Amino acid sequence: MAHLGLIGIGVMGSAFAQNLADNGHTVSLMDRDPARAAEVAAEGADLAGELIGCTEAEDFVASLPQPRSVIVLVPSGKPLDAVIDTLIPLLAPGDLIADLGNSYYKETELRVEKCEAAGLMFLGMGISGGAEGARHGPAIMAGGSRASWDRVKGPLQDASAKFEDDPCCDWYGPGGAGHFIKMLHNGIEYADMQMIAEVYGVFRDAYQMSPAEIGDVFEAWNDGPLSSYLIEIASEVSKANDPETGKAMLDIILDRAGQKGTGRWSVIEGLHLGAPVSMMQAAVEARNVSALKDDRAARAARWGAAGNPLAFEAVPKARAIQILGDALLVAKICAYDQGFGVLRRASEAFGWDLDLAAISRGWRAGCIIRSVLLDDISTAFEEAPNTDLVMSPHFEQYLSGRVEALQSGVAMCTALGLEVPTLYAAFSSFNAMRLETGTANMIQALRDRFGAHTFERIDRPGESVNGPWHE
Amino acid sequence: MAHLGLIGIGVMGSAFAQNLADNGHTVSLMDRDPARAAEVAAEGADLAGELIGCTEAEDFVASLPQPRSVIVLVPSGKPLDAVIDTLIPLLAPGDLIADLGNSYYKETELRVEKCEAAGLMFLGMGISGGAEGARHGPAIMAGGSRASWDRVKGPLQDASAKFEDDPCCDWYGPGGAGHFIKMLHNGIEYADMQMIAEVYGVFRDAYQMSPAEIGDVFEAWNDGPLSSYLIEIASEVSKANDPETGKAMLDIILDRAGQKGTGRWSVIEGLHLGAPVSMMQAAVEARNVSALKDDRAARAARWGAAGNPLAFEAVPKARAIQILGDALLVAKICAYDQGFGVLRRASEAFGWDLDLAAISRGWRAGCIIRSVLLDDISTAFEEAPNTDLVMSPHFEQYLSGRVEALQSGVAMCTALGLEVPTLYAAFSSFNAMRLETGTANMIQALRDRFGAHTFERIDRPGESVNGPWHE
Repeated sequence: MAHLGLIGIGVMGSAFAQNLADNGHTVSLMDRDPARAAEVAAEGADLAGELIGCTEAEDFVASLPQPRSVIVLVPSGKPLDAVIDTLIPLLAPGDLIADLGNSYYKETELRVEKCEAAGLMFLGMGISGGAEGARHGPAIMAGGSRASWDRVKGPLQDASAKFEDDPCCDWYGPGGAGHFIKMLHNGIEYADMQMIAEVYGVFRDAYQMSPAEIGDVFEAWNDGPLSSYLIEIASEVSKANDPETGKAMLDIILDRAGQKGTGRWSVIEGLHLGAPVSMMQAAVEARNVSALKDDRAARAARWGAAGNPLAFEAVPKARAIQILGDALLVAKICAYDQGFGVLRRASEAFGWDLDLAAISRGWRAGCIIRSVLLDDISTAFEEAPNTDLVMSPHFEQYLSGRVEALQSGVAMCTALGLEVPTLYAAFSSFNAMRLETGTANMIQALRDRFGAHTFERIDRPGESVNGPWHE
Repeated sequence: MAHLGLIGIGVMGSAFAQNLADNGHTVSLMDRDPARAAEVAAEGADLAGELIGCTEAEDFVASLPQPRSVIVLVPSGKPLDAVIDTLIPLLAPGDLIADLGNSYYKETELRVEKCEAAGLMFLGMGISGGAEGARHGPAIMAGGSRASWDRVKGPLQDASAKFEDDPCCDWYGPGGAGHFIKMLHNGIEYADMQMIAEVYGVFRDAYQMSPAEIGDVFEAWNDGPLSSYLIEIASEVSKANDPETGKAMLDIILDRAGQKGTGRWSVIEGLHLGAPVSMMQAAVEARNVSALKDDRAARAARWGAAGNPLAFEAVPKARAIQILGDALLVAKICAYDQGFGVLRRASEAFGWDLDLAAISRGWRAGCIIRSVLLDDISTAFEEAPNTDLVMSPHFEQYLSGRVEALQSGVAMCTALGLEVPTLYAAFSSFNAMRLETGTANMIQALRDRFGAHTFERIDRPGESVNGPWHE
């Protein structure tokens, strides 16, 4: 059994400490709230492993066997750097600091450098699964030196989620690779949640379905290829009632979404890498728009809700449920396709040599985006590491006949004035990529006309020429 | 008359030097190609002002009257920094370096600091209008210290484009403000061009119209509120024939678009600022997808082009032309709305105190996105500096009755499987902002369910609460 240190024992940290102790490991605890460590240690007195509450950094460090391993789970940025700066002079060469927070991967790379320069090891690890996951089995995505991973792999894999005995907790690459992968996990999560919200909106606004009725649809979907944690809890929250008013809980919650930045970071990194990120971007933008509640009210008063200018006849409810379920499945595959596309480009650009099969295996349990589809995805990448998911035989069964449902659903919703930007982005990302002849010839003509940027001719590819505009 | 220096006399630089000389100014020229300065000087021997070719930096600097003003028009990044590093030891305190290239605004800010630390002045100026504009009147957007602007304002405004005698050449704010504004100009340009390409695609693929026929439509539109440089040249390139084959030039140009980065930068900066940028993003993504020609061919072979699963009946051609013209007008306003939204947020975030009315006035002539709409926009901002364009009485005439056309056009194109991502983004950006009740309540419910992120209740706004999920 291992003896680790853990600094930062808020909701996530204390849950993870209890999880480690459940698995028989000893954990020294410290928090900026001096009373907190003793409290958490006392609460965990009955667990298999020991929790040791410390109030001073010196005692905390002295309590750990050498070489020491200290997990830090505090807000990223300045609070994390303050903890690292406190630890560095107290630790000995070969000791390890492992950041388990939501750090920006480039900052993780700087911290690896800083700690290695001080003779220490540093791991940047993303964790997913919320407080419940931290307590009973999260997914963990680690990056940093392989040697530092070997130091803590045992206890972390003990505590992590398992998919058929396979721990959802692994090391994926050097430097900031772990935090980059966690960031993309969250980017996919943004798209996934926004699509669920869009489908909920269609049921609510076009079919006047109650939250409970919508919850039943999600529940039914959770038995098929859409089966996933987010669909499961979408069903649950749709069916929940508000204890205060007795009304459906969803009807009581304000439609103004928060965000902590990892979705936006994913889009920005994807853009830097030139990767398609339209679905995550639509999801981030939808949250931005949701925050502008007052401006929306003003525009609603002026412009009113959209009508139905084409007099489009909505499909019957039962058909809509089928179309939207199929649409969601295709869109989910497109979201994974974009997410793994960013990871592939990052791997090439940063020389990380990421194993996409291993990453998808690690997402099959514990994390927020866990879903049965990820098992297919891991199989597809195991068979062909550079496979294009949309072209993989493993997705044939899901895509065939369903892309049309996505197209129909988006066209119908737009005709009816319903907002489905992420579903549209999914359809467009699929559709644009199967157009052998697009319309960028017009872009090239305009760019050459005003800026002499040149273009290629279809009959002489590879040669840059100008048009006859000024002749 | 002024005597300026100009380093970098490629297509743009030599045209701009001739323009300054046309206006009676003297310009000392230098280029990394030692023969080039003498050539350009000789070509401009008949102009009103003198062009002086120099081969050595020392002679170039010595030729200029003090305090010296040196315009640099070389590729941004390392080539620009090399020129600056050469100039700094040769110049005297109070001399001015003005970068007229497409620099990233944060690098401009570093250059301002570096030059001011050396006792010099530095201006970061964006220029738009292509080679023709540089020769006969470009738009220029300057940033840096006000005092440095006063030094070169006279000759630059002489050479710039005019809108009813008003020079489209101004100083808008400190540091990198000029280059930031130029970047956003290009972001709007990306969206504008992509929308034109999408409409062209609908005419080509749904109505089998020839390029020449499509050119006639653009030409007719250029007489109304869509009147703009890009619509004008879209008509021109649509009607142009290839001298080699006699075919329509558009049919000969490969559909693989290039990009130099300013569109992508605009999206990234907008995302950092939390501003809606969906239209520019869709345009950047469309160019990315266009570049993946081989992957598109593979997917086309596997999946084929989209069908018409709802058996949607396309509107007649004449009606489609009307709908798409109206759609384009609304979408254009939405693109400006997003672009100025980013500028407004940047102004607040960076303390630039930007005058949006002045910026829109400066875009009415000379630059690539010049259009009659910009005159309405400048009037709207003059009357109310913080106006929401979509709520401004000046846009009532354009938006009323036309938003439905945008909605209809996008719904129809999606039903038919045609790619209109930027038009969709325009509709969605308008539509989402007029929904008083969106679907972010579902997002908040899910976030609170898995991560205890809290939400607001509609009956107790301002208070953060958790849901009854675990009761």
